Amino acid sequence: MAVTSAGPVSLVLDILSRKVPTAMADYVEANNLQGQLKYNLFVGASSGAETENRWAKLNMIERRAPHQVGKEIAKGINHGNIKFFDKHLSMFPVDLMYGFYTREKANNRLDVAIVEASAITEDGGVIPGASVGASPEIIQMADKIIIEVNTAAPSFEGLHDITMTDLPPRRKPFLIMAPEDRIGTPHIPIDPERVVAIVESDYPDQTQPNAPEDENSRAIASNLIEFLKYEVSKGRLPENLLPLQSGIGNIANAVIGGLASGGANFKNLKVWTEVLQDSFLDLFDSGNLDFATATSIRFSPDGFKRFYDNWDQYYSKLLLRSQAVSNSPEIIRRLGVIGMNTPVEVDIYAHANSTCVLGSRMLNGLGGSADFLRSAKYSIMHTPSTRPSKTDPTGVSCIVPMCTHVDQTEHDLDVIVTEQGFADVRGLSPRERARVIIKKCAHPDYVPILEDYFNKAEFECLRKGMGHEPHMLFNSFDMHKHLVDHGTMKLNKWDWNS
Amino acid sequence: MAVTSAGPVSLVLDILSRKVPTAMADYVEANNLQGQLKYNLFVGASSGAETENRWAKLNMIERRAPHQVGKEIAKGINHGNIKFFDKHLSMFPVDLMYGFYTREKANNRLDVAIVEASAITEDGGVIPGASVGASPEIIQMADKIIIEVNTAAPSFEGLHDITMTDLPPRRKPFLIMAPEDRIGTPHIPIDPERVVAIVESDYPDQTQPNAPEDENSRAIASNLIEFLKYEVSKGRLPENLLPLQSGIGNIANAVIGGLASGGANFKNLKVWTEVLQDSFLDLFDSGNLDFATATSIRFSPDGFKRFYDNWDQYYSKLLLRSQAVSNSPEIIRRLGVIGMNTPVEVDIYAHANSTCVLGSRMLNGLGGSADFLRSAKYSIMHTPSTRPSKTDPTGVSCIVPMCTHVDQTEHDLDVIVTEQGFADVRGLSPRERARVIIKKCAHPDYVPILEDYFNKAEFECLRKGMGHEPHMLFNSFDMHKHLVDHGTMKLNKWDWNS
Repeated sequence: MAVTSAGPVSLVLDILSRKVPTAMADYVEANNLQGQLKYNLFVGASSGAETENRWAKLNMIERRAPHQVGKEIAKGINHGNIKFFDKHLSMFPVDLMYGFYTREKANNRLDVAIVEASAITEDGGVIPGASVGASPEIIQMADKIIIEVNTAAPSFEGLHDITMTDLPPRRKPFLIMAPEDRIGTPHIPIDPERVVAIVESDYPDQTQPNAPEDENSRAIASNLIEFLKYEVSKGRLPENLLPLQSGIGNIANAVIGGLASGGANFKNLKVWTEVLQDSFLDLFDSGNLDFATATSIRFSPDGFKRFYDNWDQYYSKLLLRSQAVSNSPEIIRRLGVIGMNTPVEVDIYAHANSTCVLGSRMLNGLGGSADFLRSAKYSIMHTPSTRPSKTDPTGVSCIVPMCTHVDQTEHDLDVIVTEQGFADVRGLSPRERARVIIKKCAHPDYVPILEDYFNKAEFECLRKGMGHEPHMLFNSFDMHKHLVDHGTMKLNKWDWNS
Repeated sequence: MAVTSAGPVSLVLDILSRKVPTAMADYVEANNLQGQLKYNLFVGASSGAETENRWAKLNMIERRAPHQVGKEIAKGINHGNIKFFDKHLSMFPVDLMYGFYTREKANNRLDVAIVEASAITEDGGVIPGASVGASPEIIQMADKIIIEVNTAAPSFEGLHDITMTDLPPRRKPFLIMAPEDRIGTPHIPIDPERVVAIVESDYPDQTQPNAPEDENSRAIASNLIEFLKYEVSKGRLPENLLPLQSGIGNIANAVIGGLASGGANFKNLKVWTEVLQDSFLDLFDSGNLDFATATSIRFSPDGFKRFYDNWDQYYSKLLLRSQAVSNSPEIIRRLGVIGMNTPVEVDIYAHANSTCVLGSRMLNGLGGSADFLRSAKYSIMHTPSTRPSKTDPTGVSCIVPMCTHVDQTEHDLDVIVTEQGFADVRGLSPRERARVIIKKCAHPDYVPILEDYFNKAEFECLRKGMGHEPHMLFNSFDMHKHLVDHGTMKLNKWDWNS
């Protein structure tokens, strides 16, 4: 790792590499180099949390993009030790190629890349493992490459469709017309001159068990499936739907689980998504899923065992691509994907906050949420109507007057789903949207509070000739303030400040 | 117009049709039918303001999308008479095809379409005029079609590249690799069974003179060109740049004017944009522009005269497409477009408000701003640092702590330009962005005010472990409140409310 550059070394990890990063952390720890060896760390999406949490604790991360999981990393970001930015996962690899994040370097290139391979072909091509992420672009742009060959998992040869990224004016269309279409190669070609080390890694996949479904998430899934059935009945969706994208977490698992169970009765489904969770195995096993493609598999330890044990059954129905392809707006629009994600909060006009609690505290980052929600045929946000605060089991309303941070705009969302019901806001004006979102999605405890806000805002703004999207602007975060001051968003009375 | 349906009749106009809408307004006026004959009015983008302002005054518009210009329409929207929603111009025509805006109808179709033709081919195809907009999709989806043949302007035959829209799972790639590529037909094919009338129209184009350039807009243009030169010098842009997109208004005109003048010295430019204004004629005449394509030409009356007088000179360098193509994220990303737009306000973390003043009052709508700013290689917002209030020539800062409405997110913008300078925020964390935007872009009168906000927010949020994107959430709109109460955003002192 004897690499020097003007600023901190720009280091790129693929999602799965662990052996070398662990050795680097050991080195820093053993030599008390905390805060002295720091890296600009770019990871396709999120990295294995365990290794990176150690890096964060050892103060080895100067800058970090575009997405992260792990408590210590989030802590470093929110305490100001790590400079983090979150970027659309579809754009991040291309921005790397543009040299946007290595502007201080004369050649716009990255210093060192560490990529995981599940195998290396005879002519030196890299066969990725359970994730492709940004590996093709990382390998194209790095001055030095370290390959970790993981011998603890089987070779994934044949499971990938790899495309390299070219720059304008030489970019070409992605000629993908269905989730199963292949347009690339099964491996990542690599320039052997730039490979400085090949390391054997024998770490098994370090994933977490799934968050369990609960009553709320099952109710949300049921409402969502009701909406999809409605669209089929109106002739706006074919009976086998269109390719599904599903986010991460227990609601997403419940939705996919709901599609796998008998009740939904959709057959011949296909999936075009970013990450595959365990519930997709259930969907395969139900016989209702014909094909699934993503950039990454993130099963639980039990899920990986099930996957490896039944490899032959899944192999021909699965394809992994780079995140520039899996999250490409070009393809998401063409396929008419049904996009489904979970936000921090949604407001009465259908903006959504996907990243920052109280407008400031970063959770994990944007991920691919906006890639899918902007370009999907159906852009669906599903959320419980409330979350617990420390003192009130329904102290936080996920339906608010105004989002404290906006990642998805009112121009992007079609349907909001909670355990209370769904609001179909397509073609509605903001004032119509507010009424239906409050009525169909808000928790009963918050319906009167939100109605009071909306009615007052509508009255005052129409009176002033500014009533397109009525707000009591200087009260718009009062529910959040009440939460900070009193542990619940349940205002007794609005104190108008106009 | 004897059309009945469950709700108001869904009527679709192309941007230029005027004869029939004028006759309808005359009819309503003559028979005192104000408020009784109302239409759901969908227009490719914005319509000729003069006709539509009359419709608004006569209370003939029940619902309106996706973009509008004209004082009376905005008034109707902000006073609650017109249900308006703004949608990405690239998506609007496809959403029409999906039946998302005609959900109450059994066949998901539109009732009546009025489209302008500059000529009709022998086999009945429509040759649009100076605008294509959503005409292909409108014609595909309407039960009845009225064609206005405009005989006051020349036939535009050969100037269009028309593609029809197919629905998933049958959508195909747009095989466009350069602005001059043709993938369609020169006319819109039409089902003669559905044509209920052909009307001769002899109205000349009713456009407005250009907003004049001023010192500020020239300074903004100069800063922007400095940024582009910098990118060329660093090898991140070719010497002839990449296809340019430019919004509407005097700053956009100054930018294109700046590229036409000798100083910029970029040769062999190409343009991929939504609307062409007069300044593009100057850019053609300078010899620096090789090709331009858009969905609409909106020259001033003088500009149109110049265009028609020198038809042969421009004809081979110009192509008009549907807005689903001109604004397609697929193509914008592939070509690496340089996107440039003007916002209402930008915040210190690089979110932008393109639509709603004080979060509530609609100006014109989103238009194609987010189509381009999300997908462009360079996403650039240019704005004066301040605008005048009624009592203070610099009473409104366009750089604010938090946008009162968010149409473009922090994940979408690369560069902010004002007459003060430019802030290059690529790869920066939010706290770094705030520092550079305040320093480089804010007006000197507002620099200390914004610095006070940011410093306090940073201190408090880092202390609480929520410092990724520091806000004093309950003071974030205090500058706007001061404007409402005192006619200027120049706070003497922040009154912290934490």
